[in-house]
Amino acid sequence: MDLVFDAPQLAAYLEDVFPQLRGDFSVETLAPGSITMRLHVQEQHLRPGGTVSGPAMFALADVSVYALVLAHLGREALAVTTNASFDFMRKPENGRDLLAQARLLKLGRTLAVGDILLFSEGKEEPVARSTMTYSIPPKRN
Amino acid sequence: MDLVFDAPQLAAYLEDVFPQLRGDFSVETLAPGSITMRLHVQEQHLRPGGTVSGPAMFALADVSVYALVLAHLGREALAVTTNASFDFMRKPENGRDLLAQARLLKLGRTLAVGDILLFSEGKEEPVARSTMTYSIPPKRN
Amino acid sequence: MDLVFDAPQLAAYLEDVFPQLRGDFSVETLAPGSITMRLHVQEQHLRPGGTVSGPAMFALADVSVYALVLAHLGREALAVTTNASFDFMRKPENGRDLLAQARLLKLGRTLAVGDILLFSEGKEEPVARSTMTYSIPPKRN
Amino acid sequence: MDLVFDAPQLAAYLEDVFPQLRGDFSVETLAPGSITMRLHVQEQHLRPGGTVSGPAMFALADVSVYALVLAHLGREALAVTTNASFDFMRKPENGRDLLAQARLLKLGRTLAVGDILLFSEGKEEPVARSTMTYSIPPKRN
Repeated sequence: MDLVFDAPQLAAYLEDVFPQLRGDFSVETLAPGSITMRLHVQEQHLRPGGTVSGPAMFALADVSVYALVLAHLGREALAVTTNASFDFMRKPENGRDLLAQARLLKLGRTLAVGDILLFSEGKEEPVARSTMTYSIPPKRN
Repeated sequence: MDLVFDAPQLAAYLEDVFPQLRGDFSVETLAPGSITMRLHVQEQHLRPGGTVSGPAMFALADVSVYALVLAHLGREALAVTTNASFDFMRKPENGRDLLAQARLLKLGRTLAVGDILLFSEGKEEPVARSTMTYSIPPKRN
Repeated sequence: MDLVFDAPQLAAYLEDVFPQLRGDFSVETLAPGSITMRLHVQEQHLRPGGTVSGPAMFALADVSVYALVLAHLGREALAVTTNASFDFMRKPENGRDLLAQARLLKLGRTLAVGDILLFSEGKEEPVARSTMTYSIPPKRN
Repeated sequence: MDLVFDAPQLAAYLEDVFPQLRGDFSVETLAPGSITMRLHVQEQHLRPGGTVSGPAMFALADVSVYALVLAHLGREALAVTTNASFDFMRKPENGRDLLAQARLLKLGRTLAVGDILLFSEGKEEPVARSTMTYSIPPKRN
């Protein structure tokens, strides 16, 4: 699996296609088959009590594998989430960003599969795990 | 499975504990073992292109089964999401609310399981299906 | 969704392509979009203690949606399981067959999704639920 | 997470409680939080065409995390599978054993979660991934 974007190119591309995500997510590291992304946790990502909400974790897991797929397929590629699974295992720490470590398990012609561990920054035990599947439509000519 | 809340009591309770959700979600129908909830789709629930986002669908599925569990367990109960799965099957229709039809498949002493079909209002084919599992901690004395 | 097989044709086709399954599974009812199949529970499907094993439940869920997909696509179709999820909710009853009620939620050009409830015969509460996704390869010419 | 069994003790315990599994599964390596197990692929694990069947992969994934949980909890412990998810990504190689690399992501008081990669022996790319959740009932006095 070879990358067609480096981390700054990927970040620029994501800002281009998802301008509304700016400030929420950033690319920490990118390598063939793996990525680390950060959710800059803010008020709108929290539930009462101050922990990161399920929808915010969903968004981070989804954008991480989506970005990882695009980093291998490039600018014209499309990828549509078809399946997602989550295990929520520990309460995120109040006041800490969330980091996603994602790896690409399959990058086929029509399906891509990645899995993700989510961590509160600075903690060793994951708060959640997730798997995401994307359907890759054929390129339009 | 007997209800301890009716629909207006459940709605009042949800507004009480999740005031920030007001305006986003409402209870359409409630019966023993099943609920229909509405996501009042607004700008912040949309992706570029105008369809409802994955995190918004996650939020609707999660709040629907959570509300359904509380409608059977009552005011003191706690329920923590431990597992979620999703199949995203069709693109939601632009400009339509999303409806969740959830049913409770198990309400045990420590675990509850519900599944959900999500529909764009007025359409017959579901846009997504989901399953949610909740851990029910023992009551504090 | 229109059927291209009726129940006896489907049963004959399954015996033709999976002769080793004969005696294990049978088609109880078939309608557009839904099927009921039976696992004739025998010694090899049991765990110690006498309840139906997880792998046997997997096999019943998988064959049910697979058969349902083929009943709509016909004899030349291929379908490969790409994703499966299970919630095991109750212990199957000793000495009873297992029935799967499956419905087709999506039958697309490249992906099919079905969900399944599994019951011990004669009981009202499901022992398990499952979702199965199949990739449908393009027809060979 | 500390082990209470070493690999030979775990193997002996599994043979003791699941004598019918003898010859099918073996413990390759065991360490705190991780295990590698082997499915000795035989005729009964195959589908037509000669690849390992879905139910056989389910059995290997399930027994791997189950064994890993018991290796940390010891002889009196109980663990019941409550949730399983699978992504089947590549066709297993004909004529090769299947290896499961499982890791324990959570070992709580009432729930344990592990994930698994399945490989055809000697191949680098996984044939499948899985997650398993177990409910751990309180000890009987």
